[in-house]
Amino acid sequence: MPLVTITLKRDRSPEERRAIADAVHAALVESIGIPPDDRFQVVSSRFDDVIYDPGYLGIARSDDLVMIQVHLSTGRSVAQKKALFAAIAKNLGAVGVRPEDVLATLVEIARENWSFGRGLATYADVAPLHLSGH
Amino acid sequence: MPLVTITLKRDRSPEERRAIADAVHAALVESIGIPPDDRFQVVSSRFDDVIYDPGYLGIARSDDLVMIQVHLSTGRSVAQKKALFAAIAKNLGAVGVRPEDVLATLVEIARENWSFGRGLATYADVAPLHLSGH
Amino acid sequence: MPLVTITLKRDRSPEERRAIADAVHAALVESIGIPPDDRFQVVSSRFDDVIYDPGYLGIARSDDLVMIQVHLSTGRSVAQKKALFAAIAKNLGAVGVRPEDVLATLVEIARENWSFGRGLATYADVAPLHLSGH
Repeated sequence: MPLVTITLKRDRSPEERRAIADAVHAALVESIGIPPDDRFQVVSSRFDDVIYDPGYLGIARSDDLVMIQVHLSTGRSVAQKKALFAAIAKNLGAVGVRPEDVLATLVEIARENWSFGRGLATYADVAPLHLSGH
Repeated sequence: MPLVTITLKRDRSPEERRAIADAVHAALVESIGIPPDDRFQVVSSRFDDVIYDPGYLGIARSDDLVMIQVHLSTGRSVAQKKALFAAIAKNLGAVGVRPEDVLATLVEIARENWSFGRGLATYADVAPLHLSGH
Repeated sequence: MPLVTITLKRDRSPEERRAIADAVHAALVESIGIPPDDRFQVVSSRFDDVIYDPGYLGIARSDDLVMIQVHLSTGRSVAQKKALFAAIAKNLGAVGVRPEDVLATLVEIARENWSFGRGLATYADVAPLHLSGH
């Protein structure tokens, strides 16, 4: 993994949704070394469901809001997290999302808390150095 | 943040949904000092999707069930968490939700794991004392 | 709790969904001692929303994909987590889900972060030994 949940305030076309999902995944690859094929995302538009403050901390948000939650393994430095947030906003900017409309949170979980299939705790027995990212 | 997900078992009117969302947000403000404009919520009705036990731990739950998940920064004391749970149940009681039907969980994440916009790790460089809550 | 979210790539019948939910819950009971009536699950089909890699780490995934996220209290050993992943895959196999299509993640939260109703932090004042699992 990571496991990425993207919640869009307003409805968007399948092409826009895909472009947003691609942008977020590319940010993970570029900034913290996630393998390109380590991609698992849930993307949905939830107009009636999303409530947001349009000005918290002086940032002018709109219905173009994109909320991103990334579950990833523990161990990234603050510098890496900053690079990840910056890359997400930059890449989403390239597909038309204003940086003010990008909200992101990271949820860190232990390495042994992932199973990618076959009932195995995929990373439990693998040293961090042997995996480029997850 | 916090980032709040509210999952309702049964369908409810937009007014009821808003009242529930308001009640939960007010609880965060009252009990642990979240700023009133620090509000980001996803509220949905998922009748066919939610499976719950109607009697676990001797609590009689019904289809009025309201499940709340709060992602917030680490650092609240057990006393603060208890106050938060109590406030959520009290406020939801005021809008007609029985306390038996209120389930809540807290997921704590590091301060540097939030980005509120502009690609910045919003809280990474700010001392806790300079923010009233998040 | 635990609190279990099951996200299905493709649409499935109510019976299939229930069988999958039952299989996952039984795995929690068998492998890490969750009480049978400690069951809270959200199960949904999200065909247009789920993006997955069909070959990451050499595992051949399909649209039968079942993504499971379990929020549970901290404190399980790596051995228990491995047993849980194995049991989930085994039980889902018995209802027709290939082990390659089972993705699972665990999110651990503190004992005092649960409220099962009545506005109480249910586990905050109870010693671990007095509860068989949660």
